[in-house]
This record gives sequence, structure tokens and C-alpha cells, in this order.
Amino acid sequence: MRRHEDWMRLAYELAKAAEGQTAPNPMVGAVAVKEGRLIGSGSHLKAGTPHAEVHALNMAGTEARGCTLYVTLEPCNHYGRTPPCTEKIIECGVKTVVVGSIDPDSKVSGKGIARLREAGIEVIQGVLEPECLKLNEAYFHHRQTGKPFVTLKTAMTLDGKIATESGDSRWITGEESRRYVHVLRHRHDAILAGIGTVLADNPRLTTRLETGGSHPLRVIVDSRLRIPLDAAVLDTSEAPTWVFTTDQQDPTKEKQLREKGVEVISTGPGPRVDWETVLRRLGEKGVLSLLVEGGGEVNASLLAEKRVQKVIAFIAPKLIGGRNSPTPVEGKSPQKMEDAFTLREISMERYGDDFCITGYLT
Amino acid sequence: MRRHEDWMRLAYELAKAAEGQTAPNPMVGAVAVKEGRLIGSGSHLKAGTPHAEVHALNMAGTEARGCTLYVTLEPCNHYGRTPPCTEKIIECGVKTVVVGSIDPDSKVSGKGIARLREAGIEVIQGVLEPECLKLNEAYFHHRQTGKPFVTLKTAMTLDGKIATESGDSRWITGEESRRYVHVLRHRHDAILAGIGTVLADNPRLTTRLETGGSHPLRVIVDSRLRIPLDAAVLDTSEAPTWVFTTDQQDPTKEKQLREKGVEVISTGPGPRVDWETVLRRLGEKGVLSLLVEGGGEVNASLLAEKRVQKVIAFIAPKLIGGRNSPTPVEGKSPQKMEDAFTLREISMERYGDDFCITGYLT
Amino acid sequence: MRRHEDWMRLAYELAKAAEGQTAPNPMVGAVAVKEGRLIGSGSHLKAGTPHAEVHALNMAGTEARGCTLYVTLEPCNHYGRTPPCTEKIIECGVKTVVVGSIDPDSKVSGKGIARLREAGIEVIQGVLEPECLKLNEAYFHHRQTGKPFVTLKTAMTLDGKIATESGDSRWITGEESRRYVHVLRHRHDAILAGIGTVLADNPRLTTRLETGGSHPLRVIVDSRLRIPLDAAVLDTSEAPTWVFTTDQQDPTKEKQLREKGVEVISTGPGPRVDWETVLRRLGEKGVLSLLVEGGGEVNASLLAEKRVQKVIAFIAPKLIGGRNSPTPVEGKSPQKMEDAFTLREISMERYGDDFCITGYLT
Amino acid sequence: MRRHEDWMRLAYELAKAAEGQTAPNPMVGAVAVKEGRLIGSGSHLKAGTPHAEVHALNMAGTEARGCTLYVTLEPCNHYGRTPPCTEKIIECGVKTVVVGSIDPDSKVSGKGIARLREAGIEVIQGVLEPECLKLNEAYFHHRQTGKPFVTLKTAMTLDGKIATESGDSRWITGEESRRYVHVLRHRHDAILAGIGTVLADNPRLTTRLETGGSHPLRVIVDSRLRIPLDAAVLDTSEAPTWVFTTDQQDPTKEKQLREKGVEVISTGPGPRVDWETVLRRLGEKGVLSLLVEGGGEVNASLLAEKRVQKVIAFIAPKLIGGRNSPTPVEGKSPQKMEDAFTLREISMERYGDDFCITGYLT
Ligand SMILES: [Zn+2]
Ligand SMILES: [Zn+2]
Ligand SMILES: [Zn+2]
Ligand SMILES: [Zn+2]
Repeated sequence: MRRHEDWMRLAYELAKAAEGQTAPNPMVGAVAVKEGRLIGSGSHLKAGTPHAEVHALNMAGTEARGCTLYVTLEPCNHYGRTPPCTEKIIECGVKTVVVGSIDPDSKVSGKGIARLREAGIEVIQGVLEPECLKLNEAYFHHRQTGKPFVTLKTAMTLDGKIATESGDSRWITGEESRRYVHVLRHRHDAILAGIGTVLADNPRLTTRLETGGSHPLRVIVDSRLRIPLDAAVLDTSEAPTWVFTTDQQDPTKEKQLREKGVEVISTGPGPRVDWETVLRRLGEKGVLSLLVEGGGEVNASLLAEKRVQKVIAFIAPKLIGGRNSPTPVEGKSPQKMEDAFTLREISMERYGDDFCITGYLT
Repeated sequence: MRRHEDWMRLAYELAKAAEGQTAPNPMVGAVAVKEGRLIGSGSHLKAGTPHAEVHALNMAGTEARGCTLYVTLEPCNHYGRTPPCTEKIIECGVKTVVVGSIDPDSKVSGKGIARLREAGIEVIQGVLEPECLKLNEAYFHHRQTGKPFVTLKTAMTLDGKIATESGDSRWITGEESRRYVHVLRHRHDAILAGIGTVLADNPRLTTRLETGGSHPLRVIVDSRLRIPLDAAVLDTSEAPTWVFTTDQQDPTKEKQLREKGVEVISTGPGPRVDWETVLRRLGEKGVLSLLVEGGGEVNASLLAEKRVQKVIAFIAPKLIGGRNSPTPVEGKSPQKMEDAFTLREISMERYGDDFCITGYLT
Repeated sequence: MRRHEDWMRLAYELAKAAEGQTAPNPMVGAVAVKEGRLIGSGSHLKAGTPHAEVHALNMAGTEARGCTLYVTLEPCNHYGRTPPCTEKIIECGVKTVVVGSIDPDSKVSGKGIARLREAGIEVIQGVLEPECLKLNEAYFHHRQTGKPFVTLKTAMTLDGKIATESGDSRWITGEESRRYVHVLRHRHDAILAGIGTVLADNPRLTTRLETGGSHPLRVIVDSRLRIPLDAAVLDTSEAPTWVFTTDQQDPTKEKQLREKGVEVISTGPGPRVDWETVLRRLGEKGVLSLLVEGGGEVNASLLAEKRVQKVIAFIAPKLIGGRNSPTPVEGKSPQKMEDAFTLREISMERYGDDFCITGYLT
Repeated sequence: MRRHEDWMRLAYELAKAAEGQTAPNPMVGAVAVKEGRLIGSGSHLKAGTPHAEVHALNMAGTEARGCTLYVTLEPCNHYGRTPPCTEKIIECGVKTVVVGSIDPDSKVSGKGIARLREAGIEVIQGVLEPECLKLNEAYFHHRQTGKPFVTLKTAMTLDGKIATESGDSRWITGEESRRYVHVLRHRHDAILAGIGTVLADNPRLTTRLETGGSHPLRVIVDSRLRIPLDAAVLDTSEAPTWVFTTDQQDPTKEKQLREKGVEVISTGPGPRVDWETVLRRLGEKGVLSLLVEGGGEVNASLLAEKRVQKVIAFIAPKLIGGRNSPTPVEGKSPQKMEDAFTLREISMERYGDDFCITGYLT
């Protein structure tokens, strides 16, 4: 009935619907079709549970023999927490596999497809590929670097301020933008803020949406361990919290934090927290995507070290002024404007009266 | 993470992906969500197999307790070929059920929702209702009337002709329109043509798409049983064929047809086939949707008896002329233009160079 | 301030605003600009009155020296009812002329531009050319063939009928479509109908719009001079009327028609009116554009002789049926559908509930 | 042929085409129409030259009797540098006047219309009114306040910076944005910059477009008369320059500036230039629209005194950082974010990769 693109789009929607819940695994959707009829569908829902292909083939049952399986990502060919999907596909008698994108993971890349072809299954590649690749941009980045895909989220006035001179930032953006930030939190595996933000705003950094949502791992960068013990973000009953600091900070404070269930990690002698260690530790923990809601200094430091992949910048149509009002990126600027970081693949969305500009760093 | 509308849209896409394969059941999609995370999904795939809710809840497993279930149609509350979904929902501990549309079937209507509420489950109605209602317009019509929802499909030139004076109609429309007609065949449970069309074009009336598709039941209206025994449409190895005729036609011919696996049904003394009988018999057989690819006389006769619910008219940007060229609707016209049948909810799509205008009869 | 395209667009709008009133001259608009400032503008309003360039330069006065002149059509270089615009342009000291399209008239083509360049004026060509060419499609056709550009206007139901079997056609289309037909009449220099239409509907064939509009020359094709003396279209106090007939019709009737101010022209021995003569006579009279609101036989006859350049087809979303209901094009069809006349450059507009499809014949 | 809106739109386009050249007069366009035919058109081109109505009626000549005149602004009824248009309209025998907007000037408001009605002319108001009002927003503001309509133009990075810490700002925005800034200069009667900008960038503040454009009056705010004598903006051969300063600055410098053709105006004892005086003096000189390309302090000071009507903010998709990098609005911020200046009627355009957000201050 439908073309390959149409069926793959359904698989894509199924994959995307599981955004924010699959780490450290990728989002994957699968749809089984026989003689133009849908016979099975599914998404990978959570690490350790069945892969999307398995859901779709289980639903298909004996109908699976001779079917076409649409899957947004190359099927796995290795024994992980679950047996390889390639074997399941072969065993079920699938006739054709249509693949949206290739898994860059060295354990998989191309091997899944090779195994299927070896077993006599026709494999069609590249259907809806740009969307399928973009869907797992964080996963792919993580597989290639071992570190999370870092997205900087900023929110400023039309004159470039993130707060008044006295530090008030409630609210720069409108309700719709702020709701969307919670969607972003749900979609990301971890969220990072600097101690400055914690001291200024005492945020909870959880996902609060009317229809639920998963909380990201909360990551605080606090080189001198200044975080107050009653900080909202330290309530680990809601979500886990990690504090990155430097060597030889107050051992009592560290102990108190640990007693609250907080993980405290030193990144070395300091004086500043070492980003490489932070990101590597998060990557090891299976954090694919990190949303940075930092202040201007954290943002500047990450940018200067070229550790940012994507920027999501909200702009509210208002002016606040203030030569001492904080701005989204502080630190030191280069001498020349031509040395600015330029974004590519720029897109824009409106949330209420606000503008939300998204782009990628090269 | 997502709003009710977003989750229901996924359920809707899952339902719609099974278009053309669920009769006499409706298309239904279901999505189970817990704390903003997708935990299950599914479509009703075929009569006699599990309902969409069951697929979604099975995928969710023990996670289902406390979840929100989005379902495009009110869950069933009666014992059919499968046990009632309401009991499954209650038993799984679902907390909230979001319903897209109400089942007008007297065996269900409102009873499913009442049962859920009685069991203490919150029920939210009317999310994405227009789309969910439209999706099953044929099913709803069938439940209310016992007869299939009738769609007239026509294809004419920009000067209103469906063939040249000598009867040549290959091709009025372009390739893309013709492909879409096969999509329509896949989506409909049955297709009807008059004996005139069979004699003129010898069509197979099957679904021929590169990615497969289900064949509709083929219905031929042939009052004097003139159909040649070698007509392509009589090859029942591809799809079943019914021939409606009138009493006392040639018993030998009838027998020969039956030997070919064709069902031959008389609608009474004639001289013309009785539409009420045709539609009622199709309805009884579980045909929800009937696509009429008739000639001008069949179309005129169905229209005159107000038996058409929807019109899909292809228009090719070409002129052929001919005062004797056939047109999409013949028969007798009313005296006054103001007595024409007016379409409502008109929409237009392009297929290649052709225009496709769709509307509903009141 | 603006780019060439922006200024040419204003010239184009000025030209187009005089649609329907310039025949046998083309529509032309002109804008004079100096150092980014508008200094003059104008349209050609009517044959025998100043050309657009003259209006713009007169408005500019002494400011014209050194200016840029935007003109939608190559300036004329010959002595007609007014002196050549090229001389005016040279004399005023214009520095640059930007031309939208070239005049295909052999008296002008390229000569205007050559004359300007010879005088040391910079000439820029091809700015907004497609729009400028389309604007004068009728004029260009007339210059090349000596005959008017013929547009067939039809209005039918979604089943291809232009009236009921009893001839009632009030109204096929809705109010908005019918209003737009009057806009079309205003824009065309002449309108043609067959005697059948006159006898059936007794139309006035004038332009009736709330804000006025010019009446086209009314042309009736009546081979046997059957037109009743009290036909509405014979009231020449509103607009002129021509009747084309064949030799040796009733001389009394002819005399009576002439007494009513009607021009009666025989196209030869008959039995049918000769289209070549009709079109040539209209072309000689300066009719650039002819709108045919004929019946099916007139339309078929013009199409068969390949005398139609453009088709504007209104389609109302209603069904009337009738194997004897008239259709937009009658006559004889070719044997094969592949010999149909195919339209190109197809576009579609909505007028109320109706569709209006426009295309060109090759 | 056309509706009132269509004709008024042509008048509007004619008015708008003269943007930036009519001060202290408003932009006005006029179109004369008779029986659906265009008979005249024109714009007001420059103060002291004929009004739009006069051009249109002159073009119409004797045809004007009985016509309908479309004019974007109520016709004048007083003797200025030209006789009142109302008398011309009456004298020409115009039958109907269609007015786009009312002149808020107390010398005119409603009187023009009253005079026309008194003379028996039908007057239709409010056709395309929002566009006609917006077109002359600066003129209307000036008539009501005696001061120019002030538009703040800013250009910043996506992290809110207008230069690097070392002051480099070449270039924040791309070529298309910078071209559009020249269009804005052409459209405005005057442009204002602070001495800081002059010292940092030495701008010419002229209009430089490939198709010309008028230079705005250049206004420099320099409280201590620090401007270098060789500043580019002091070359008055290109365009006039005014320098606003405070009492008792260096009389030699003042004399030298005057010798260069610069107007030097003290706004009082200081220490800062008094905005009320600046704007009033500009208003008296006939400056309707003032474009501020100031630095952050000038912008902050104008905003704080609520002297800004409109903001045009360019945002380039790049990040430069720098806690000491200058921002578009500096000065002092309010304590609370809720006291920010909020823009209304927000719109967005793209220029190349840049975003341009426009809004109005309440
Ligand atoms: Zn797998
Ligand atoms: Zn059920
Ligand atoms: Zn000329
Ligand atoms: Zn005036």
C-alpha cells in the first residue's frame, strides 16, 4: 500500500516516541509489512529490554515469514544484554530488510547488514536516512568519542541579557518556551549547571511536564564544593545528582553530600574542574546527551575548549539593558570578530512570543 | 514529554497504517505511556487477532500498572472473538485512558468508557477526535446502516469525458493518479464495477503496488449475466469475485461461474440489479467500504438512489471532446441545476499533473 | 534603495492595472528613478494617448536627466500616433534603461534598444522577464499572427456537465466564480458566443462589476442568422456587437441588424462560419484577446482547428448527471485518448467552493 | 475590474516607492479610476512638488470628471507650498474619493473629507487602513509630538555581543543584513550615532546601495566635542552632519567644525546631551524618522527615557563570548526582569543567515 518512505516514517515516529528513555542505547523503531499489510511494529523502549525488531517480529508471529522489515537503524549483530537481532530476523524468515541508517558503533557498523545479506536477505539502505541519522546524533557522537553530545541551551533578551544586574531572571522567556525546556530535559540523559546557577537560582533541574517525563541525571560543576546542603538539586529522591569538583576540597562536605546520595567526583588538582574528565565520566556512565543550562562562564569555558556540538538559543522580545547584566557567554572573547564560532544548519521556531534558534558547531 | 495530542497522533498513525486490512473491524491504534515514557504500542492488524490495546499492554508488561493508555477508539466491552479490552485494561492497572473517538456500535457505544470509569480509571475523551472519526468513517457508517460506505471514484478529462467516442480510456490520468487508485483499492474492502466496464476494459480490479497491498473483494453488477467466462476479473486465484444478477438468468452460465469459484447472487426479479440487496449482502459479509469504479450508468443509478457517501474525482488537464464520448455520470439529470448533488468538505490533491477532488454527499 | 526587480515590479503593477483598456496596444508601465529615489511613474492607458515612458518622464521633469528608466516593454522607435519613445528618452538625458521584455512587433523588435544604445544609453534587459512576457501574451500573439489570442472559458460540474438535460445552467458555479468571469470579460477585448448560447440563455455578455469595467466587443457566430432581433446582446447602446454569418442569409434580417448598430459580416459560402475569417477580421480591428464563452460545439470546432491558445475551466463540486446533458466540448472526439489536447503550464485557483484550472495549448 | 482594495494597493505601492524622500511630508499615492479603467496615477515625490492626487488627476485630464480617486491619505485642505488637493478634486469633477487613512495633522484631520462631502463627493474610508497607517507611522508620530519617530537598530551575535572585547565588530552580520541597513538609512530622514561609535569605527553613515539611495541627515551626539576633525562623518560634501554637544565646549573646535559645514548645537549645561532638545530640534527641521545606530550607552539612555518607538534587532548565528564584550543596550538595568521593556507586534525576517526581529515599544 505505502512506499518504503511511508513505512520507514512510521518506524521513525515509533523510534522518536522513545526519545529520552533509551540511553545508552540508540532510539530505534521497526515495522514489519507483508504484501502491503502492517503485521508488526515496535520501538526499543529501554536498555536491557527487547530491541525494536524483536517487538515487531513478535507481533507478526508466524506471519513474519516472507515479510519486509523496516528498521531505522542497522540491526545489531552482537551478543549484548539481548541476543543479536540479525539472528532473530534470519530465523523468522524475513525476506527484505529496509534500513534507515548505519550504526557507527564499531561492534556493529555494516556487520549487521553483511550478516543479513550472507543469509540471503535483501537489504535496502538509505531510506529516510537524514532523519534517521539526526534522530541518533547524540548516540552516534557518543559511540565515536566516548563522550556525550553537548547541547548548550541559553535564554536571553533581545539585548543579550540572561538576567538583570541584580541577578533576576524570572522570567526571561514566556510559558511556552519554559515548557519546551522541560521537554528538552526529558529528551536528554543528563543536564549540567554551574555552581553559580545553583547559588543564584537554586533550581531543581528536573522535568516537570503535565504528562510526565523522565528526569535527566543532574550534573553540577562546583570546583570548590560550595554547594549548600539544602540546595534543591541535592534532593536525590527525585533524580540522581553528580557533583564534579577538584582535589582536596572539604572532606566533611563531601561526606555529607555522599550521605544524601550524591555522587562526588574530583577531576584532578584544579583550580578548575576538568571538562575532559567530566565528559568522559558521563560517557562511561552511558550518558549520550548532555544539556548544558550553565551560566555565562560555564558556557564560555565549554565553547573555548570546543566541547559543544549544538546550541539552542531562546530569545525573548524584550530589552532589559545593564552594562553589568550577565550574558549567555562570558569568559574571554577572541580579538577578531572573524574568529567567532559560527553555527550551521540553523533553524528557528517560535514558542509563544519567543524565538528559538538552533544550530550546530562545526 | 509530549502532550495528549502528540501521543494520540502516534496511536492514530499506528491505526492508519493498518488501513485496508481490519474489516469488518475498525482501525485502532494504541500507545501506552508512563511518566512521559513510551512503554507500549500497537495496532489492530486483522479481525480475530488481538486488539490494539492488547498489543500495547502486552508490550508494556508489568510497567503497565499506573500508565496512561491512548487509544483512537473507545475500548470494546463485549466478548467477541477476543475477550473485552476493558477487562484487560482494568486488570493491567491502567490509570488513565485517553480516547480519540466513541464507537457507535450499539454493542459498545459508551459502555466501554462507563466500565472503565466504574473501575476507577480516569477517562479523557475527544483528543484528536476529528481525525479519529474520519479514519473509521466507513466502519461507523457500516455499524449504523449495515451497509458499506460507498465511495465513487471517477476520472475524467477537463472537458468531462471518461473515454473517447470509440471507448478508449487508456489513459485519461497520469501514472501517479493511477498508482493512487491502487492505494485506494488496497484501502477498500470491496470494489464494484458494472458489466459495461468489464466488457469495455476487461479489468482485473486488483491492487498492484510495488510494495504489495491487499486485494479488495471484486463485485460485478451484471443483470443479464453477460460476463464472458474468460473475463480477467473471474480469475479467483487472485482475489474473490461476486457477481450480482437478477432472477432466471442462464443457469448454465451461473453454474460455470460457480465452478470458477465466483459467487453468483440474484437480487430479485429485475430487470435491474437491486442496490439495496447488493449493499446489504456486502454489509452482512463484513464489507465496510466499497469503492465504485463504475461507468456512467452505474454511477448515475447509485447517485439517484442516494447510495453514495463520498466522491473522489480525478481530473486530467486535457481535452478530448466528443458529443458521444461517455461521461462520469449519465442516467437522467434533474430538470433544474439547483437540484444537483452538492459536495461538502471538499479537498483537493495533485497527483502528477492531475487534480483529485474529494467531497462528501450530504 | 530598491533593486532592479523591485522597481520593475512597480512598473509591472502599473502596466497590469491598465489590463483590458489598451488594445490594440500592449500594456506597459514605466518608473523613473534617480539615486534611488522615485521621480516619475506611469502606465500606457489607452491607444492614442501617451506611452508609459512619456508619463513617467513628464512627471520627472528636469529631474529626468541622469535617471534610470524601468519599462516593462522595449520602448517604441517608430512614429505611430505618438512620436517614438526612444527619442523622448534620449532627449530627456536618461542614463540607463531597464527593459522587462522585448517587443516582438517587427516594427520595434530590438530596434528600440539599438537606438538607445547608439545614443550612449546603458540598456539592461531581462529584469522580471517571465512576468512581463506573460502580461502581454495576447499582444505578442497578435503581433505574430495578426489574430487574437483565444481563451476558452468553460464551467462544468464535477461530472462534466454544463447544464441539465433540459438546458438549465443557472448556476453551475458560485457567486465568486461568476464575478471573476466578469473580470475576465473586462480584461479581454472581445467575447465570442455561438448562436446556441444566445438562443438558450439570452446573455448580455457585458462586464458587470461593482467598480465598473470595460465591455468587450461582443461577437456572435450565427451561420444561418437565427438571432432574434430582441436578443439582449443586440442592444448596442451598452457595447458594440458583431455577428458573423455565411453568404446569402436573409437580407432583411441583415438590414434590421445593421439598423440596430450591429456589424454583420459574412465569412463566405458556408455552411459554417469560417474561423480563419472571424479571427483575422477581429485581429485587423485591433482585438488582441478573445474570450470564448461558447457552447460545446463552438468549443469543439475551435479546438479541432487548433485555434485555442488558453483554457480557463471552472469546476463546481456538484454532480448533475444526465447522459444527454451538454458538456463543455462536444463535436467529434479522436479515436484514441492519446490524441487528446494536453494542457501545459497548468495552474489552479479557488473561487469560493469552485476550482478554476488554467492551462495553455501547445 | 478590480475591487477597492486592489486599486488602493496600487496607490499604496506608489506611495511606498517614495519612502525616504518625502519628509517632512508623508508618503502618499493616488490612483484615478473610471468605469473600471485606470486613468491616472502618481505619488508624492518630494516636499514642494505636486501632491499624489495632483499627479493622478493631471494624468487623467478631462477623463477625471466622474472618476473615483483612491488616495492612501486624506487629501489636504489647506494652503501650503501647493494649493489644497480638495479644491483640485472638486474642480476636476471627481465623483468618489476612497481614502486609506486619516491625516492626524490638526491642520487636516477630517477637514479634507468634510470639505469633499460638502461639495457632494462620496467619500469611502478605511480601505487598506492598517497598511496605510503603518506606512506613515513616522509622519503621524511627528505630527502628534513634534519629534521624530525613533527606531533603534542593533546587530548582535547569538550570545548578545556587538563587538569583541577589543572592539572589533567587522562583521557581526552578513552581507545581506548589511545591505538592508543601507535600505533602512535610505528610508530614514536622519541617522544618529554616539561619539563612542565614531571613535571606534569612524563610520560614514551614508547610504551605499548599488541602485542609489538618499543619504540621511547624520546626527552625532558628542557631549564633550571629542570628535576628530578628520572623522569620515564630517565630510559634508556627501550629506549634512549635525553635532549635538553641551555648553562651553572648546570654541575653537566648534569653529573648525562649522567651517567644515557641520551644524553644532548645544543642548544646555550638560554634562550629558539632552535628548528632548535633540529630538525637538530634529523634529523642527522636518525629520520625521530617526534611525539610531548607537552604541550600548546611547541606546540605554534613549530607552530609559522612553524615547524609542521601534526596535530592529539583527541577530547573527554566531557566538563570540567575552564578559567585557559590549552589548546592544548597556546603562543600568532595572532590578526586576518583569520591568523589562516588552516589544509588541513582533515580526521576523531572514537576511542571509541572520535573523532580523522587529517590534514596537508601548
Ligand atoms: Zn538488536
Ligand atoms: Zn478491544
Ligand atoms: Zn512608446
Ligand atoms: Zn494635497
